[in-house]
Amino acid sequence: MEMIPLAWYIAPLGAITALVFAVVFFFQVKKADPGSERMVEIAGYVREGAFAYLKQQYKGVSVFFIVAFILFQVMSLGLGVLHWLVPWAFLTGGFFSGLAGYIGMNIATYASNRTTQACSSSLNKGLKIAFRAGSVMGLTVVGLALIDISAWFFVLTWFDFPLEKITVIMLSFGMGASTQALFARLGGGIFTKAADVGADLVGKLEAEIPEDDVRNPATIADNVGDNVGDVAGMGADLYESYAGSILATAALGMGAVSMLGAKYQGLMINFVIAPMVLAGIGALLSIIGIFMVSTRENANTRQLMFSLNKSVYIISFLIGIAAFFITRILLPADFYFGVFISTVIGLVVGILIGKFTEMDTSHSFEATRNIASQGTYGAATVILEGIAVGMKSTAAPVLTIIIGILAAFISSHGFQSIEMGLYGIGFGAVGMLATLGVTLATDAFGPIADNAGGNAQMCHLPEDVRHMTDSLDSVGNTTAATGKGFAIGSAALTAMALLAAYLEEVRAVVLLMGEKAGRVMYLLIHHSKDNFELIPVKKASVLHFINYYQIHVLNPKFLLGVFIGAMVAFVFSALTIKAVGKAAGKMVQEVRRQFAELPGILEGTTKPEYATCVKISTIGAQREMLLPALIGIVTPIITGLILGVAGVLGILAGALAAGLSLALMMNNAGGAWDNAKKYVETGQHGGRHSDTHKATVIGDTVGDPFKDTAGPSINILIKLMSMVSIVFAGLIVTYSLNVEKIRPPFSKEIPDKKMQNEIIALRPHSPCLGCPSLTSDCLADSLKKK
Amino acid sequence: MEMIPLAWYIAPLGAITALVFAVVFFFQVKKADPGSERMVEIAGYVREGAFAYLKQQYKGVSVFFIVAFILFQVMSLGLGVLHWLVPWAFLTGGFFSGLAGYIGMNIATYASNRTTQACSSSLNKGLKIAFRAGSVMGLTVVGLALIDISAWFFVLTWFDFPLEKITVIMLSFGMGASTQALFARLGGGIFTKAADVGADLVGKLEAEIPEDDVRNPATIADNVGDNVGDVAGMGADLYESYAGSILATAALGMGAVSMLGAKYQGLMINFVIAPMVLAGIGALLSIIGIFMVSTRENANTRQLMFSLNKSVYIISFLIGIAAFFITRILLPADFYFGVFISTVIGLVVGILIGKFTEMDTSHSFEATRNIASQGTYGAATVILEGIAVGMKSTAAPVLTIIIGILAAFISSHGFQSIEMGLYGIGFGAVGMLATLGVTLATDAFGPIADNAGGNAQMCHLPEDVRHMTDSLDSVGNTTAATGKGFAIGSAALTAMALLAAYLEEVRAVVLLMGEKAGRVMYLLIHHSKDNFELIPVKKASVLHFINYYQIHVLNPKFLLGVFIGAMVAFVFSALTIKAVGKAAGKMVQEVRRQFAELPGILEGTTKPEYATCVKISTIGAQREMLLPALIGIVTPIITGLILGVAGVLGILAGALAAGLSLALMMNNAGGAWDNAKKYVETGQHGGRHSDTHKATVIGDTVGDPFKDTAGPSINILIKLMSMVSIVFAGLIVTYSLNVEKIRPPFSKEIPDKKMQNEIIALRPHSPCLGCPSLTSDCLADSLKKK
Repeated sequence: MEMIPLAWYIAPLGAITALVFAVVFFFQVKKADPGSERMVEIAGYVREGAFAYLKQQYKGVSVFFIVAFILFQVMSLGLGVLHWLVPWAFLTGGFFSGLAGYIGMNIATYASNRTTQACSSSLNKGLKIAFRAGSVMGLTVVGLALIDISAWFFVLTWFDFPLEKITVIMLSFGMGASTQALFARLGGGIFTKAADVGADLVGKLEAEIPEDDVRNPATIADNVGDNVGDVAGMGADLYESYAGSILATAALGMGAVSMLGAKYQGLMINFVIAPMVLAGIGALLSIIGIFMVSTRENANTRQLMFSLNKSVYIISFLIGIAAFFITRILLPADFYFGVFISTVIGLVVGILIGKFTEMDTSHSFEATRNIASQGTYGAATVILEGIAVGMKSTAAPVLTIIIGILAAFISSHGFQSIEMGLYGIGFGAVGMLATLGVTLATDAFGPIADNAGGNAQMCHLPEDVRHMTDSLDSVGNTTAATGKGFAIGSAALTAMALLAAYLEEVRAVVLLMGEKAGRVMYLLIHHSKDNFELIPVKKASVLHFINYYQIHVLNPKFLLGVFIGAMVAFVFSALTIKAVGKAAGKMVQEVRRQFAELPGILEGTTKPEYATCVKISTIGAQREMLLPALIGIVTPIITGLILGVAGVLGILAGALAAGLSLALMMNNAGGAWDNAKKYVETGQHGGRHSDTHKATVIGDTVGDPFKDTAGPSINILIKLMSMVSIVFAGLIVTYSLNVEKIRPPFSKEIPDKKMQNEIIALRPHSPCLGCPSLTSDCLADSLKKK
Repeated sequence: MEMIPLAWYIAPLGAITALVFAVVFFFQVKKADPGSERMVEIAGYVREGAFAYLKQQYKGVSVFFIVAFILFQVMSLGLGVLHWLVPWAFLTGGFFSGLAGYIGMNIATYASNRTTQACSSSLNKGLKIAFRAGSVMGLTVVGLALIDISAWFFVLTWFDFPLEKITVIMLSFGMGASTQALFARLGGGIFTKAADVGADLVGKLEAEIPEDDVRNPATIADNVGDNVGDVAGMGADLYESYAGSILATAALGMGAVSMLGAKYQGLMINFVIAPMVLAGIGALLSIIGIFMVSTRENANTRQLMFSLNKSVYIISFLIGIAAFFITRILLPADFYFGVFISTVIGLVVGILIGKFTEMDTSHSFEATRNIASQGTYGAATVILEGIAVGMKSTAAPVLTIIIGILAAFISSHGFQSIEMGLYGIGFGAVGMLATLGVTLATDAFGPIADNAGGNAQMCHLPEDVRHMTDSLDSVGNTTAATGKGFAIGSAALTAMALLAAYLEEVRAVVLLMGEKAGRVMYLLIHHSKDNFELIPVKKASVLHFINYYQIHVLNPKFLLGVFIGAMVAFVFSALTIKAVGKAAGKMVQEVRRQFAELPGILEGTTKPEYATCVKISTIGAQREMLLPALIGIVTPIITGLILGVAGVLGILAGALAAGLSLALMMNNAGGAWDNAKKYVETGQHGGRHSDTHKATVIGDTVGDPFKDTAGPSINILIKLMSMVSIVFAGLIVTYSLNVEKIRPPFSKEIPDKKMQNEIIALRPHSPCLGCPSLTSDCLADSLKKK
């Protein structure tokens, strides 16, 4: 086997340490006082519901995985367009992501009542329980993703796979994580909002009972939904980004080092392992960050928020320092500093997006307050102002991401070598996500605190306890919103890295074809009259591929791909919003039925049938997610088969650009509506029960599926489409309709008539075996004949 | 002068004939019975308001034109980055568009009461008056645009300007039309909705008087708004598309014929005039189409609709046939058929988009009815369902446009010559817009019928007359919706053609630089190690430019441009929505003031001060449009200066792709909400005054700025950004920061050290005068030295 540098072992070390601490925190939380019998009972319902959902979801996922696994085997063993290890990598990626979701849900549902109970003695204790539980999720995601990556890397190196194979095989392991994320985010998003809307429409409006009332049969489902959507869903989403960014960067590292010239070839493995090492260090530092979180008693929201943010800032700072040494040790002297700067840029971008999200959604700021004041004119103006706020809020984060990407590209010497620039962008994404142990802990803290509040409400705990859980909940709302900003920001950077890595996968596919056919593969790049070059695929740069496939703005296949990508983001959002509507409709019927058939419920004498509501949300979520999921999966495949590689890159770019803005708009509009309502509830514009409040409640209801279903699901969409493209690259390169090439200028004037035909009309299964729509050594022969 | 082929004279002939018939129809309508004194009085208020607005708008436009003219003179005479004729072309483009708007408003405000009066004798007469008035608008737009184009073309040819100069100078004449369209569409959109929302919020909700009640001070402004937004705004929008598509196609024709090889050089002028001839034929055929419109008495909505559609279909068919002969006569035998097919595709796409729009917004179909039925759950579900319908409705038209563009590209031999393919796409756009005489007549019919209804209502005319005006109004609503579909569809195709034509403008800019410096300009295309070519700029293909500027998916400057473009579409929409809100707020205050200070108004004894309301809407519209307008203008310039040509093409592609979906979503959601409300008003789900009705009214209010301000304004945004890019191409090519070039592969291995520096670091005002960031003969020298 090739020698793996010692530094690499930091990655598995970080992974294992993270997992060990996850176990420690798990038992710490579990052994905390669970509270009164009633509290345990209520929490038990939620726990039961959550696992009922998870069981159903994992059933669905399993079916999907089995089908996909078989399909991949056909593509691999049958058609020979996929490496034989890819289906297996796919399985482990999915398995570990699912395991992380299971563990996260497990601890979150333990933590709710324990947080409530801890609040009855001290705010600091409550904060710690909730945050430690969140940390279990954070560390589990980081640990499992990193151990999976490390194990594959170690084993493949052990068996002497060449590095360029290792990176592309592992890349498609992200497809497993993608699939899990799809089910978790999309299914979870539909579940939680179906339950929420259903509970509100019948409970609050028709039966006029307050929120989180035990008499409402959908209340438990609503609480389950918080865990399902915001713990498991968010976790799977970020698991995917985390693994995806590391793997894409490793693959881009291969490309970068190849283009730097012979001098640096010895450092190839360093380029590949550097992102893993950075992630490993991040995991270790995260543990320190988690221990730093504490607060003093009577802390206000701002101070609580700071106690969480503080650890994120410090960890980011420490990771920045670590990045300096990692890049310095592993990368060549001419380049390390640029890559280090790219990492710092990624860290800063992550923090800034969170800040901007806060400014657009927190009711301490103008934007959200304006929405509340529009409530005095009625619901319509609330909606309009909210949409305008959401649309306008795209500017700051998008500009931040753009400037970040450009700066990372430039500082990593992108203008000297595009491959180095792309590597730098990837490194920025890894840097941003290296803080995941802490940032995800902060995100997962939100729904736990929310559920703790629900538990306190349903158990009618004393005012001062509820005041404390409310404080935590309020902070949790903000971290949930900024977490969404972080999630979409990191998804955008990851998708960008995946987009670049896609061409590495195309290269691997072509090489695989050559292997099967026993031929050396070349790209014929045709510059102009009498000026063409045969570039060995192995040594071709991304610019060669871009040139070969004509992936430029005036190739209609590319440009129309961009149109389709943008449109799919809208249609996907429409379908997720409709999915919530449909699932919520069934929930409404069920709650009405229970109220009608069991009149004891409203009197508080009969226990509502919580489980049926959970089941309805569960089945609804799993059923209604099918169509949007299918759109996400099928679009790149069909587009690819018709428009080829250029079309695929078009839709990825279009979906990424439009999806980013659309997701930000929906997340932020939803968050702002939510907080505008809360702002009115603080007594502004007439307070609760005023007409203004009613208007803002309508805004909040519109915002719910925006911010918890459609918006976050777009994260998945843009990454999933990249992953599908990567895994199906073989199929698309081989079988895409041969409208593949726009003739480069003057191509019809190629002197050799015979060769002209071969270049232009080379089709799959043409006489030149093994070179579908690509030139190979038989073409080289004809060149020699010339 | 070069010989202009005889066929070309069809263009000015068509233009003049259209204008003659416009005059005839104008006087026909004007001499019709204007109705009772009261009807004339009411119409007079609207007319007065409309001209008050137009006067104010043209003041604003004039200021803008003067500033822009001076700026262009500086760019032309001072910096030498613009041809000296461009500022003048800009002026005439703007002048004729403004004149068309003036005439259209003039006739529309004459027509309203005359239509009402005609309805009191016969439905057919009413239809004819309204449609003839609409035709005046349609024929004026077509006639003035075409006469302006013809005049410039004739004069420039007369003075022996070379063809390649003529086409690019004329292209920037579209900037004048763009500016007019910006003011008309954006200002008009804000005006109409500020008045509408203001009238509704205070009149309907607070004072509880019905719609179109003369006691409401904002009612006249509301009626004025229909003319301002839907007649003048829509007219200016389509004027721009019409002129833009013809000019862009002419410019693309230049590129196409150059690349076809020496054999076809003699046909150069034919390629340039062909789109003008097609437009001329379209103008002539439109007149026939207008005469075909009539209906029988007691026709229902469906039959009325058909009587309008019929003429569009027949004209489309005839234009298709004419296109066959035009292309056959003017274009080379190998290529004409493909271009003919592209034209047919454009015609079909135009009709299909209209159909799809109808299906998504008419309450005869599922989508809109579902929104109405969601009203039973309240306003929130109406909003969610409407947004979902809007988002989903993007699929069919976007796919239609994509398939249309691809088919037009392929059939015009795009895979043999990308230039021919782009020419075919342009021809498709011209074909679609060749029907404009009739289609715009149909669109303008809508607000005229609407105002006729308002007139009947305010004058308390008998039930049967109001029934007839209601029939016309109802048809007008549908044509307004389908007209919006046609407008965005044609805007997308035009923008696509402009995007391609942009590179022709870049070429012209570089040639202009060379002229000034007395040098021959070359592009240095650097393929790989030791493989570079010097291509004379004059003969470079678009692929050479793409290669030179590296306008491909993995150039961050391009890709980040796409991000910015998508984001700007969102921010622009946010600002337009906010603009309506702000202007409406002032209107609300004014109406409240009048009701408070003049209590006689509500009793019907005091005449409200209509003019102040018109003034408030006017000033509000002109003031609030500034910020979004500025965003549209400044974005491509700043992005261009920082990210260069690649960045500009990125934002154009991003804004086009995301803007198309966003505009369709907002137009169709708005239309569907409007009709869902109307559907409930037909008695469904409890009918008027039910809770469901209230919920759908909220949907309608949200939809108003969606469909009448933000959505249609995006048409302008995507075309305006293209036009700004075209006019500022000189500035951007010359002064963009020199982060311009990603080194092609292996560039650092260029053997000659000195030359390497010159290639990479060539900056504006570098020693090599006249070749800012471009290579010129001095580089050729250094190559020879090598």
